[in-house]
Amino acid sequence: MTEFELIARLTPSLPTNPTVVVGAGDDCAVLDAGLPDRWLLFKTDAVVEGVHFLPDTAPEKIGHKALARCLSDIAAMAGTPAAALVTIALPQEFDVKFVEAIYAGLNRLARKHGVAVTGGETTTSPERLWMSVALLGWVPRGKAALRSGAKAGDAIFVTGELGGSLAGKHLEFEPRLAEARWLAERFALHALIDLSDGLAGDLPHILKASRVGAELLKTAIPIARAAKLRAKERTATTPPFVAALTDGEDFELLFTVAGGDAVKLLDAWKKQFPKLRLSCIGKIIPGAGMAIRDQAGLHPFTSDGYVHFA
Amino acid sequence: MTEFELIARLTPSLPTNPTVVVGAGDDCAVLDAGLPDRWLLFKTDAVVEGVHFLPDTAPEKIGHKALARCLSDIAAMAGTPAAALVTIALPQEFDVKFVEAIYAGLNRLARKHGVAVTGGETTTSPERLWMSVALLGWVPRGKAALRSGAKAGDAIFVTGELGGSLAGKHLEFEPRLAEARWLAERFALHALIDLSDGLAGDLPHILKASRVGAELLKTAIPIARAAKLRAKERTATTPPFVAALTDGEDFELLFTVAGGDAVKLLDAWKKQFPKLRLSCIGKIIPGAGMAIRDQAGLHPFTSDGYVHFA
Repeated sequence: MTEFELIARLTPSLPTNPTVVVGAGDDCAVLDAGLPDRWLLFKTDAVVEGVHFLPDTAPEKIGHKALARCLSDIAAMAGTPAAALVTIALPQEFDVKFVEAIYAGLNRLARKHGVAVTGGETTTSPERLWMSVALLGWVPRGKAALRSGAKAGDAIFVTGELGGSLAGKHLEFEPRLAEARWLAERFALHALIDLSDGLAGDLPHILKASRVGAELLKTAIPIARAAKLRAKERTATTPPFVAALTDGEDFELLFTVAGGDAVKLLDAWKKQFPKLRLSCIGKIIPGAGMAIRDQAGLHPFTSDGYVHFA
Repeated sequence: MTEFELIARLTPSLPTNPTVVVGAGDDCAVLDAGLPDRWLLFKTDAVVEGVHFLPDTAPEKIGHKALARCLSDIAAMAGTPAAALVTIALPQEFDVKFVEAIYAGLNRLARKHGVAVTGGETTTSPERLWMSVALLGWVPRGKAALRSGAKAGDAIFVTGELGGSLAGKHLEFEPRLAEARWLAERFALHALIDLSDGLAGDLPHILKASRVGAELLKTAIPIARAAKLRAKERTATTPPFVAALTDGEDFELLFTVAGGDAVKLLDAWKKQFPKLRLSCIGKIIPGAGMAIRDQAGLHPFTSDGYVHFA
């Protein structure tokens, strides 16, 4: 049973109450605390040694990644982070300087985004270090960017370049908080998600939640230089295009707007964020599923990145 | 280096921001979200297999405990819980029914206290199961019950009975949410904490935060029947009185009120909670440190429960 199957099985029986605007199933939970102008965003995310980072990873990068993953989910709601709690589980014998360096990396990123670290706890994990970060944030009332609003005819956009995470980006990425807020303030975002499981893995979350399909243009997909380099040096076994579709932890923004907004958005983006690439990679279509277009025609592909070049 | 020494070393450099009313160092973080009548409470707590529960623990009890620990911290602020996120880390091969039973125990307790479970995540832990619960709650603005307000002359109270956790209570305890709210609404609570590390371990948190000392009366300390039974059956190596001082995870409330309120409080409590014992166990004194009085006189004792019967 996969993670998603397990979650699908557990979700229907979860208790709810009137404060819940959005429960399990989007990038963050959304809560109505009674504030006239804002909703609360609530998120947790964990990193486990040997799963999300290697034992020899620089401690500052572990701390950075632990918080950045959570921040990326706040970005995926077009929100603003406010306060974090940090749980760190350590083996019995731990190096204090190593732990301090983890916090230095985490604190640095928190300061950059105005996030208070308001405590948490330390606990014991005999075999491997893990961290869990809980994050509170805000979004203007009624303006949370969900996964469920994509419409046929929408243009699909992605920030940055894809497939470069394994070369190191997954430890150093900058969550796209300012970009997401700018987008939400100036354009009608129909659907927004951050890419944690790869384009092929995360686009289906938007499609299922919105009950639509997607058609991508192969030449429009922005492939990271690192993915091309890894293929050239043969340090990667997957071709760069497949890496761009399937490698997790790019933490770029994937979103849709009405087709008529696409050109205006691209123009405004270039002025606002001249250093960060924005690509229109395809369109939302009626129906379901994903397909990709190249010179030979349209090819269905699946969430594990398998493209049917029939 | 102990957990507390590590936390003391990490805390001073944690980032803050204007929303923070109380950061690291009390039972919950307290945040001012701009609500005119309320503050936010924010807490995380983790349970680790082999540390907080045994591999053969009934799954419903694991789920119950994971949430109940967090709820007890909301109680320790005299707050009301609202929403939880649940992280569960599982070995590669897990039993779906076991995981469902964990959630059944957690969901049952959540429903009882009106808590919405708004998602979370599942992740991988090859060697042992662990869970981390993040909890949001409310407390009336300005009314969070902190550790720092105890004053010389205060009466010290504890709910329930102490030292019975190892006999099973640590898996089944009921967080004292209603009791704490009732107390805060009717009496001026000077200091409040929940007992997770034992009376001798947790009372010093109040004393240090309030810069005072405490004198306890030995005969007034309510010893759990389970602790006496375990001593009689020789399943416990510690005498019942030492177990009552030092056994962790009682999750009872420890609090202080002005000495003049003590009798009125005991009377009102008996009417309101006739089934739950409330004991006045001593008084706050100027200075620092803890001492316990018996027929022979006054004996200093330490946070590890060592009593100096000189």
